[in-house]
Amino acid sequence: MASIGRFQKGEDIFYAKVVDGKLYKLKGDVFGSPSYVKRPVTPAKGIRTLVPVEPSKVIAVGLNYADHARESDLKPPTQPLFWLKAPTSLIPDGGKIELPFPTHRNDFEAELAIVIGRRIRNVSPQAAGRYIFGYTAAQDISDRDIQQGESQWARAKSFDTFTPVGPYIETKIDPQDLTIQLFQNGQLRQNSHTSQMIFNCAQLVSFISTNMTLLPGDIILTGTPSGVAPIESGDKLEVRIGDMQALCNSVK
Amino acid sequence: MASIGRFQKGEDIFYAKVVDGKLYKLKGDVFGSPSYVKRPVTPAKGIRTLVPVEPSKVIAVGLNYADHARESDLKPPTQPLFWLKAPTSLIPDGGKIELPFPTHRNDFEAELAIVIGRRIRNVSPQAAGRYIFGYTAAQDISDRDIQQGESQWARAKSFDTFTPVGPYIETKIDPQDLTIQLFQNGQLRQNSHTSQMIFNCAQLVSFISTNMTLLPGDIILTGTPSGVAPIESGDKLEVRIGDMQALCNSVK
Repeated sequence: MASIGRFQKGEDIFYAKVVDGKLYKLKGDVFGSPSYVKRPVTPAKGIRTLVPVEPSKVIAVGLNYADHARESDLKPPTQPLFWLKAPTSLIPDGGKIELPFPTHRNDFEAELAIVIGRRIRNVSPQAAGRYIFGYTAAQDISDRDIQQGESQWARAKSFDTFTPVGPYIETKIDPQDLTIQLFQNGQLRQNSHTSQMIFNCAQLVSFISTNMTLLPGDIILTGTPSGVAPIESGDKLEVRIGDMQALCNSVK
Repeated sequence: MASIGRFQKGEDIFYAKVVDGKLYKLKGDVFGSPSYVKRPVTPAKGIRTLVPVEPSKVIAVGLNYADHARESDLKPPTQPLFWLKAPTSLIPDGGKIELPFPTHRNDFEAELAIVIGRRIRNVSPQAAGRYIFGYTAAQDISDRDIQQGESQWARAKSFDTFTPVGPYIETKIDPQDLTIQLFQNGQLRQNSHTSQMIFNCAQLVSFISTNMTLLPGDIILTGTPSGVAPIESGDKLEVRIGDMQALCNSVK
């Protein structure tokens, strides 16, 4: 497994490979054929983890686990259902989720996220894998009062801080063979497996690429399993997917 | 009226003020306090007009003219309804609209577009004007078969080429005092006035800024009036808003 992250130290923003907690700075285009500095960044102090990419688009797929469609009283779709979230809603691992309407029901939603590595349009599911850079953990925080009050979901899911992503991108994993779990204040609340997706990652990338050109760094959130529940101020949320490092965020 | 455009000549991409068809190159940040080169770009040959900005977000407002809500059999909203379109759907003046599903009903939709000039979050309608850079013409091309077949509208409206925008940004106009017209092959098909908007531009920017941070260059499509109708291969479409230069696109 190769973990790639994006970091900031002072004014310097850089990509690095993460090995045993040490950062090896990347030279060249992260989506090209980069090389790595052989000695880790020192001192490790004062380094902030950023959202691992800067996407031109954040695409969210809905109802992609049959159990979540059931709990939402919605029929599972016969083809992928997706919409767009504002890139300004992204926060990194460790970032705080802010609820503009704390009296509304605001839910967590753990999701596996696909990171696109190459420009694509109209690829087959068979070819889609070649255009995927890697995978990371994400949440699609949702204001349910707003979501149920209007036909389009973009607003309910695009508030600043409503898309935690990270911490790192894993480039060498099988995306359909991962446990996916969400812990709220240490309690297991979502517990499923990516083999339960209705449309797998290759099918999603292929389908979306027939709609819009995908660019390096674009992110696709692949849907959440059952178990979504409300969050409130002070909550600590942790998304654990396979052996990836957990995505940890708290609610302000 | 001051018209600002974005252009390409060879490898050089630049902003310019457009006066009597001549281009005066801009020096400095277009959203800051730029100055202009005193002599126009010569020769004018070989210059391509680009989409006038590179937005991080393309926000589309729905049902913002009461007559269009009526023709769509939808209740006018009591607050702005919006969603996000993919930035990859943008094409400039002169660009060709491509219909991935020519047998579907694909409609034109003429719209006034707001261009954001400064980073904003949570502004009042009274203050919103200060954050607006200017206005331009746009279309929100829509695949109605897809739009009516699924709950979220992002896909039906995000195909590559489905958002013509331009040609220029007008920085000194009253956005609520403009005729808005669409001509299809020379025939007038949409004919309204921006005073007919349910939510005016300042109210839209204010409302959206309470949901997401808006960044310089972000675009808000403000909704279409009545008269939307299908397009087909070979059509020539022209959006005329006030005295702005027309936005002209053809269907491939």
